[in-house]
Amino acid sequence: MRIKCICSYDGSNYLGYQRQPGSNTIQGTIEDVLKEITKEDVIIYSSGRTDQNVHARCQVFHFDTNLSIKESNIKKAMNSLLPNDIYIKECIVVDEDFHSRFSVCKKEYRYYINTGEYNPFYDRYCAHIYNLDIVKMNEAIKLFIGEHDFVGFSGAVNTKNTVRIIYEAEITKKDDFLIIRFVGNGFIKYSVRIMVGTLVEIGLGKKNYDSINEVFSTKNRNKAGKTIEAKGLFLHEVFY
Amino acid sequence: MRIKCICSYDGSNYLGYQRQPGSNTIQGTIEDVLKEITKEDVIIYSSGRTDQNVHARCQVFHFDTNLSIKESNIKKAMNSLLPNDIYIKECIVVDEDFHSRFSVCKKEYRYYINTGEYNPFYDRYCAHIYNLDIVKMNEAIKLFIGEHDFVGFSGAVNTKNTVRIIYEAEITKKDDFLIIRFVGNGFIKYSVRIMVGTLVEIGLGKKNYDSINEVFSTKNRNKAGKTIEAKGLFLHEVFY
Repeated sequence: MRIKCICSYDGSNYLGYQRQPGSNTIQGTIEDVLKEITKEDVIIYSSGRTDQNVHARCQVFHFDTNLSIKESNIKKAMNSLLPNDIYIKECIVVDEDFHSRFSVCKKEYRYYINTGEYNPFYDRYCAHIYNLDIVKMNEAIKLFIGEHDFVGFSGAVNTKNTVRIIYEAEITKKDDFLIIRFVGNGFIKYSVRIMVGTLVEIGLGKKNYDSINEVFSTKNRNKAGKTIEAKGLFLHEVFY
Repeated sequence: MRIKCICSYDGSNYLGYQRQPGSNTIQGTIEDVLKEITKEDVIIYSSGRTDQNVHARCQVFHFDTNLSIKESNIKKAMNSLLPNDIYIKECIVVDEDFHSRFSVCKKEYRYYINTGEYNPFYDRYCAHIYNLDIVKMNEAIKLFIGEHDFVGFSGAVNTKNTVRIIYEAEITKKDDFLIIRFVGNGFIKYSVRIMVGTLVEIGLGKKNYDSINEVFSTKNRNKAGKTIEAKGLFLHEVFY
């Protein structure tokens, strides 16, 4: 029986999503709980990894089990054993041809920036940057839309195919917060954080609007902005 | 020179407000930073203590210093040295007859309850309770308004005067969240948490509306509800 789960997590206290021996990770924590419930050596497969300090509003993973148990009971059992910063929102039985990673059709990431007064209650969930020119940033972000080789906007060294499609990219403002949205068919390592870092440098007047196209044409990582800190990044949704 | 400061803090990682040797406290952390800035043995006086895991949106404290330094520079210096979960919002020079505790005219506390789906991003800042009858709770909370002896709603054993005035008490709902507000001339130890705990038991149908008046008349702590967990409580504002 294959179970698909949707979960949310606060990544602040984890070394990242991917299981690593001796480290506190999202995958490791969830697998340990599933082993306790099923008494099986469960491996979970997610839609993709998230880095240290990155959060998920809706991450998706699946696992296979021989245990026959009601979906709603799996959810209850998991949430009763998981720590407070990981929550299972939904568990459903799916066909065996469903795969959390390979069946992904698109993904949405959001990055949050507080442009107003510092607030200790939001500190784990946003960057804090003043004096951004949002009009310039909103013009620039449109350049990411379409099919591009994102190798210049990536920390990836061992990925062969670095071409991805971004369907939507926009910046909205809610009170003091900028919400920077990217919807794409996939994102390579660090690419959202480097794209946001580049947009921030454009918003601060340190880089030109043109620099985005320059990175695309030269494929030169050094022409892009810095990788912005992880804590403002949320895996917002995975679409199948 | 007397300086009045308004600060906010996330109490999750502290043993409470009050300095205690060898423990991580709000007061201790702020005093250590002020000692570093002023090279003086600074003691800060707040509007009152907050317990472990209680937060402050606007706590007020004052201190005296011989250092002659611009108010805005004190704020900057303090924030650059303080950890991310304590933030100084304002520093101003005040007359020496101002006292953060004795000059208080009224205080507002708020308690937050998530009545919807669990959310790991709000976990440190609210209780999580389903199936509350808000209409009943809103009728009951009105009974707290006025001058009462709050000894039955208190964890205090060594407070002589337990009479306080509550000017405003109300429950509002915003999305899935209940916001329970109390404005009063002062609150004795645990009283907000015991009042909220009692209201929750009324909202769950475990206690009657009358039980509040019964606690007032009998002064019996055991007739009130349980002390609700600290993490949903915020010192919202201090009025002078």
